Amino acid sequence: MTAIKVGIIMGSQSDWPTMTEAAQMLDALGVAYETRIVSAHRTPDRLWEYGKTAVERGLQVIIAGAGGAAHLPGMMASKTRVPVIGVPVQTRALSGVDSLYSILQMPRGFPVATMAIGAAGAANAGLMAAGILALNDPALAARLDQWRADLSASIPEEPVDD
Amino acid sequence: MTAIKVGIIMGSQSDWPTMTEAAQMLDALGVAYETRIVSAHRTPDRLWEYGKTAVERGLQVIIAGAGGAAHLPGMMASKTRVPVIGVPVQTRALSGVDSLYSILQMPRGFPVATMAIGAAGAANAGLMAAGILALNDPALAARLDQWRADLSASIPEEPVDD
Amino acid sequence: MTAIKVGIIMGSQSDWPTMTEAAQMLDALGVAYETRIVSAHRTPDRLWEYGKTAVERGLQVIIAGAGGAAHLPGMMASKTRVPVIGVPVQTRALSGVDSLYSILQMPRGFPVATMAIGAAGAANAGLMAAGILALNDPALAARLDQWRADLSASIPEEPVDD
Amino acid sequence: MTAIKVGIIMGSQSDWPTMTEAAQMLDALGVAYETRIVSAHRTPDRLWEYGKTAVERGLQVIIAGAGGAAHLPGMMASKTRVPVIGVPVQTRALSGVDSLYSILQMPRGFPVATMAIGAAGAANAGLMAAGILALNDPALAARLDQWRADLSASIPEEPVDD
Amino acid sequence: MTAIKVGIIMGSQSDWPTMTEAAQMLDALGVAYETRIVSAHRTPDRLWEYGKTAVERGLQVIIAGAGGAAHLPGMMASKTRVPVIGVPVQTRALSGVDSLYSILQMPRGFPVATMAIGAAGAANAGLMAAGILALNDPALAARLDQWRADLSASIPEEPVDD
Amino acid sequence: MTAIKVGIIMGSQSDWPTMTEAAQMLDALGVAYETRIVSAHRTPDRLWEYGKTAVERGLQVIIAGAGGAAHLPGMMASKTRVPVIGVPVQTRALSGVDSLYSILQMPRGFPVATMAIGAAGAANAGLMAAGILALNDPALAARLDQWRADLSASIPEEPVDD
Amino acid sequence: MTAIKVGIIMGSQSDWPTMTEAAQMLDALGVAYETRIVSAHRTPDRLWEYGKTAVERGLQVIIAGAGGAAHLPGMMASKTRVPVIGVPVQTRALSGVDSLYSILQMPRGFPVATMAIGAAGAANAGLMAAGILALNDPALAARLDQWRADLSASIPEEPVDD
Amino acid sequence: MTAIKVGIIMGSQSDWPTMTEAAQMLDALGVAYETRIVSAHRTPDRLWEYGKTAVERGLQVIIAGAGGAAHLPGMMASKTRVPVIGVPVQTRALSGVDSLYSILQMPRGFPVATMAIGAAGAANAGLMAAGILALNDPALAARLDQWRADLSASIPEEPVDD
Repeated sequence: MTAIKVGIIMGSQSDWPTMTEAAQMLDALGVAYETRIVSAHRTPDRLWEYGKTAVERGLQVIIAGAGGAAHLPGMMASKTRVPVIGVPVQTRALSGVDSLYSILQMPRGFPVATMAIGAAGAANAGLMAAGILALNDPALAARLDQWRADLSASIPEEPVDD
Repeated sequence: MTAIKVGIIMGSQSDWPTMTEAAQMLDALGVAYETRIVSAHRTPDRLWEYGKTAVERGLQVIIAGAGGAAHLPGMMASKTRVPVIGVPVQTRALSGVDSLYSILQMPRGFPVATMAIGAAGAANAGLMAAGILALNDPALAARLDQWRADLSASIPEEPVDD
Repeated sequence: MTAIKVGIIMGSQSDWPTMTEAAQMLDALGVAYETRIVSAHRTPDRLWEYGKTAVERGLQVIIAGAGGAAHLPGMMASKTRVPVIGVPVQTRALSGVDSLYSILQMPRGFPVATMAIGAAGAANAGLMAAGILALNDPALAARLDQWRADLSASIPEEPVDD
Repeated sequence: MTAIKVGIIMGSQSDWPTMTEAAQMLDALGVAYETRIVSAHRTPDRLWEYGKTAVERGLQVIIAGAGGAAHLPGMMASKTRVPVIGVPVQTRALSGVDSLYSILQMPRGFPVATMAIGAAGAANAGLMAAGILALNDPALAARLDQWRADLSASIPEEPVDD
Repeated sequence: MTAIKVGIIMGSQSDWPTMTEAAQMLDALGVAYETRIVSAHRTPDRLWEYGKTAVERGLQVIIAGAGGAAHLPGMMASKTRVPVIGVPVQTRALSGVDSLYSILQMPRGFPVATMAIGAAGAANAGLMAAGILALNDPALAARLDQWRADLSASIPEEPVDD
Repeated sequence: MTAIKVGIIMGSQSDWPTMTEAAQMLDALGVAYETRIVSAHRTPDRLWEYGKTAVERGLQVIIAGAGGAAHLPGMMASKTRVPVIGVPVQTRALSGVDSLYSILQMPRGFPVATMAIGAAGAANAGLMAAGILALNDPALAARLDQWRADLSASIPEEPVDD
Repeated sequence: MTAIKVGIIMGSQSDWPTMTEAAQMLDALGVAYETRIVSAHRTPDRLWEYGKTAVERGLQVIIAGAGGAAHLPGMMASKTRVPVIGVPVQTRALSGVDSLYSILQMPRGFPVATMAIGAAGAANAGLMAAGILALNDPALAARLDQWRADLSASIPEEPVDD
Repeated sequence: MTAIKVGIIMGSQSDWPTMTEAAQMLDALGVAYETRIVSAHRTPDRLWEYGKTAVERGLQVIIAGAGGAAHLPGMMASKTRVPVIGVPVQTRALSGVDSLYSILQMPRGFPVATMAIGAAGAANAGLMAAGILALNDPALAARLDQWRADLSASIPEEPVDD
């Protein structure tokens, strides 16, 4: 049985269309993960519990997506030393710049590894998680190398009209 | 003895030069308050405790100042129904726009009464707190009316060269 | 008979699809309110009158929504010491950042409790109003606590595909 | 005696170092003016009175400078059909973008002729006022033409090291 | 015959859906005008000619709309002392902030009376033009007063659901 | 046979709808070019090779379009002294401001001739390339002059309703 | 002997006052590191070599700081699967927003773990690197836990005047 | 005698501290140039003349620097097919973003090769001009190659404390 080393958490169900990109990337790389809705504001005790048990449960990376006043990634980073990767979800009025600033601008002491706004950022969160795990998992490292090589090989020489 | 009804909290000592404006305004209006450093990231349990006991301790307004990924006001709003007034502290690289978005863009369910960036916002937080308390304190209402009248009366008719 | 303690005012009919969120929240919490169109620029005398009579009419909170050069919340704050909650309505070219800055950046003396841009901000304005009234209305406080508890309880553990 | 046709108003004494540029420009062009502090929030009744009497007092242009939630120009435009020129005063945290949006983004019905942020904008407000008056004052038109010709003539052919 | 005192110019045909709002406002107020496409970059000599003859042709206000690197209003202000009102046309990538900065941030010497971005700004340009002409046209002043009174009178007391 | 002097490169197939505007402009001006997908991140060695051989292959201008963290234009400028024209492709969350800053803000030593965001910028990249080649190609200079004259001549005098 | 597992690289000597914060944090946590100047534009081949040998040299984390069109972190992420942490260095005209967008907005395939702008971000980069290494280094994990506990314990209860 | 092929023009004397960087770069590369103050607004006829005679005078590149509503580069591009390189000069309130948008966002037909904001951009304008001239000047190409090689060779391996 593969122990779960990656937790994908998000502030609400509405973040899932973005965060599913992280899950799909981990699927593609053969990395087991769990998904949870953990709202910093609506379920703060769930956040507390998740953070406090992260090390003992064997989590090695937490991917946290949130939008607006996106407090989830930073608060999780406050509760555990497990590396937290933050994904700013795009928002309606401010396009995710609000999410970005809330996640990125953490004070000295509590880093959040911030990804690009939106779906590309979520996919990259999966890749970053895999890259961290690959440091001590040669098989995963090989799969990641292959994924990267395949991506590069997939690029055509010239653009084509649709 | 006057019971303390206003708590002024801030993320770090470095926020005090801004937040002292709120304290001075409450002093001017004869409103008792307490001041605390409550860091959302460095002392999350202190935040939890402060929020959970706010109602029973008799607090009626919490003024929370923070800068950068300013999670303190919003997390406090998550932990108590006592009205939270947020003050975005000005920051170096992003001038406090990061603080503003982190405080302002709260999701449905957890309002933070956001004030202007910086010292003017902190002073206004004191006034807003007084305005809320004045709803049930006629003497304070009279002092607030007087303060407002004095402010208006202090404006000269014409500008003068220095 | 329940006296009206909350006024929801807005700059124009076009703000109503946003501001109705505040009204619906107050309905859900059993708080009586009135709704008025008060345009700072088109009906300044109506604004004056509304502000000057707010205290005597027993209003305890004014929720004011406006877009663009959104002067209504700030001008209302100038005319009455009743706490004013401002809702920046999203705009076409500037996404409501114009509304936000016009409402938020009030000078020392006239606070406006600014909410998030758009519908979430309007709903939160209703909650903030209820939180203020609940300071002296134990039954409302209980309803507000229940509303918050229900919100937290409604969050599922895991996201699901549509 | 020259009747005063231009009013220079500003939200506070602190705007005068900016707005004096407008006054100096009018001095240079031989246009009489008055200066007043009219705070939209602190002296709203003064604003009302100024606006309501502007036509009958013979004002032909009102130059209004303000910073932050700069409501003065727009509220004045609401109270009189005399053309209002707005000058966004530079601010600390937001560099005057807050002033700009509050002045510029007026709704249909109440134009404010917005100038550049800061001192250059104030000087140009003086020029714009002169340009409007010059439409019916040939002598002023001639002085304005001369001022413009002198400005153009003052530009050297090549830059020089200090 | 009514002499044409207002020129509405724009950088391209694509600006017309915005600038027609200025024309319609002038129609409503009974102000005669002409419309021209004058591209600062594509027809600079047309711009030169238009500017140089503006005074002698009896123009009293020029309304200039443009988008992107919107040089038309400012260059026109360079060529004539006739007051120029600038309308920033909304753009695709930058929402008209590019248009706004290009029009607004004129150097000392060449004011452009900048209006709000987009259609509301164009309509207000018409009103501002009328306000300037009304300074010496009592009949127009009366029509403008009436238009403003009608606008104010048209605002309902309460919002209604659609 | 006409030697290829212009290379149009882009970060991915998805940039082609934008970059085809550059190609069409070069077609219109009779300038031969090649098109290549060269991804700074996915095919860095292709970028290296393209840059290192640019001079010897006779390229005189490289037009490079990219979006987001748009490293292609700047990295190409690092690898060759052939002038690089950069086109910021519009992006979803940040409208191409991310692309713009990544392309524009090059350090001393490695200029990228940055064009407007999006399709207009791509078309102008073609024109700029032609302008550079025309310095030593009188026939092309004549065609470019004609193209510019035709553009100016195509502008109607007055706008028309659709 | 402790093998070097962390590389701190930066675009130029001028980035060192910022990036030294990362080094100092690693010093405090007892993590060995190397420092290198690797300019994406001025020494692209050094970047290539550094990236290509990172895995074989045993690097487990690369901290890359850069300002402006900050291509170093993203290009390094293109050349190695070793996790790259990016630090946006504050800049003069754009305050580091240019650096931020260039580092953050990476396309799918090449994540960069972006930190806050400036010195706090650099310090946090050191902490994030330590957090990643601690996943397989219990002694470091204990030191990191202690560092975090010490930080929390250092926060006073109340703010004090200077 | 070396014919002058590069013109460095700027909107005012105050731009010279920035634009001198372009001159110094050309000096270092042995490229002759002229410097002129050409104000789009204050000396439009000088701009016209400069543009109309650029080809016949043998200019091959025009470097144009301006700040604020920076119309000079774009208007020059309208008047001549000689490639125009634009340098956005940093400004007080808007940090040069106003200059940038006014220069960059040119409509289809009139490209301006925009450089980074401020001094680095001015230096790079010199390099870009040299790169264009080097296409037909092998000696200059060699000097430019050497300059680039020297720059790369000057980068130390490791950062040092001051």
